Amino acid sequence: MTAAFFERLGERIERIDSVVSVGLDADPDRIPEHLRERDLPQWAFNRRIIDATHEYAACYKPNAAFYESSEGWRSLRETVAYAHGKDVPVLLDAKRADIGNTTRQYANLLDEVDAITVNPYLGRDSLQPFLTRADKGVFVLCRTSNPGGADLQDLELASGEPVYERVAALADLWNEHGNVGLVVGATAPEELADLRKQVPDIPFLVPGVGAQGGDAEAAVEHGLADGVGLVNSSRGIIFAGEDRGESFAGAAGAAAKRLRTRLNQYRSDG
Amino acid sequence: MTAAFFERLGERIERIDSVVSVGLDADPDRIPEHLRERDLPQWAFNRRIIDATHEYAACYKPNAAFYESSEGWRSLRETVAYAHGKDVPVLLDAKRADIGNTTRQYANLLDEVDAITVNPYLGRDSLQPFLTRADKGVFVLCRTSNPGGADLQDLELASGEPVYERVAALADLWNEHGNVGLVVGATAPEELADLRKQVPDIPFLVPGVGAQGGDAEAAVEHGLADGVGLVNSSRGIIFAGEDRGESFAGAAGAAAKRLRTRLNQYRSDG
Repeated sequence: MTAAFFERLGERIERIDSVVSVGLDADPDRIPEHLRERDLPQWAFNRRIIDATHEYAACYKPNAAFYESSEGWRSLRETVAYAHGKDVPVLLDAKRADIGNTTRQYANLLDEVDAITVNPYLGRDSLQPFLTRADKGVFVLCRTSNPGGADLQDLELASGEPVYERVAALADLWNEHGNVGLVVGATAPEELADLRKQVPDIPFLVPGVGAQGGDAEAAVEHGLADGVGLVNSSRGIIFAGEDRGESFAGAAGAAAKRLRTRLNQYRSDG
Repeated sequence: MTAAFFERLGERIERIDSVVSVGLDADPDRIPEHLRERDLPQWAFNRRIIDATHEYAACYKPNAAFYESSEGWRSLRETVAYAHGKDVPVLLDAKRADIGNTTRQYANLLDEVDAITVNPYLGRDSLQPFLTRADKGVFVLCRTSNPGGADLQDLELASGEPVYERVAALADLWNEHGNVGLVVGATAPEELADLRKQVPDIPFLVPGVGAQGGDAEAAVEHGLADGVGLVNSSRGIIFAGEDRGESFAGAAGAAAKRLRTRLNQYRSDG
């Protein structure tokens, strides 16, 4: 896997006809009872989810928050290897950023995964060790889908634009290796449309289409750049079978397939 | 330890006459050779550093970037317990923030430590699960000490103020439980002075006095609120004895003591 990330992602999207990102937010408190006695319950859970969903998954997106423990990191490593075994790239939703030698350390996370999300607040040098990994994807948080996203991101600058548009412009500037994407929530469809016009070539990761109730049509219409981009659902897929006991994974597979169908209505080349 | 974090921190600062934060950035590549064969080299390293420095440490500040592995998290947990055994609070430098159920998961990190650093880019609701932990400290990134800190933080808003000043105002607004601090780099002394005027009651964590060469006088003069605040050095302390082989820890202790003396010159109540 030495080709550029977005090239590999584009090939996978075409092959399985899907822009679905499956969020592996394996909350230990929501894993089915019968798996909780396992050595690594999150890994046991993720393995079954991957078996049931990989045909519809353009990528897997584990959120690092759910793996911040000794057992969690072991589960995450197993999960990444298993996803790769199914030929599915892994985007670690880490939202990291720090400075100097510390952010170089964070960038080592890219040794194991194919792409990562990062936070722009600390500026270019905080992201440089990620950006220089030309074969990996780097998704910069731009306009997030939560209510408080407006607190900073929507502030109007003296230049007239909101902060998040400046972040998009900076990300475009930092995109020397063609490996930069943006995270833009589906809960703000007009902002998605405006950003797509501003940076026509940058693929978006669009979260918020599942449990958060975002706009699937806008996500597809504006999230993709030349057909490449990702629309994520986490809980809406992996916990779709929460009340089904041992057959939870089948419901997750069905939910992933349904989301693919729903999104493909809006894909011009789908 | 049910008292508020800044109350406990203030008591410790008074008891040991020090505002020194010792950054436990236990980079695996810089740990002395003779410890690398240990079961958990980072824990072996940190234990020796704590033994040598705890008399001068108002707090320990491990940066999460160096512990993001299965072994790393075990080392971190041992380190935190050992610091607590020496009666030293622990501030986890994690710079986290996410949304909804994910950020609630990150806030669970506060079960084990006394305070944490967070990133404001995603707004208030992304930090709410941290802010409601009234007995814990929450340091919001405001003006960071790296060159790229200017990229976003110094942008001028339509209202005339730079973004980082708005972040300070927001943090002040979010400070319902008196548990909010700000991270302000020592490499920008004028900004430290201005921010201190703007939010007179909020303690600062000031990094950048050691390896980054920031201004120690400004850090002390403006970093403390009613005598409470932290001035951090990481590499300048823990790797002070990098060329000393097995006696590395003594040099770290001497460096921590020297920094305490240097900072106490400027403490009015020191």
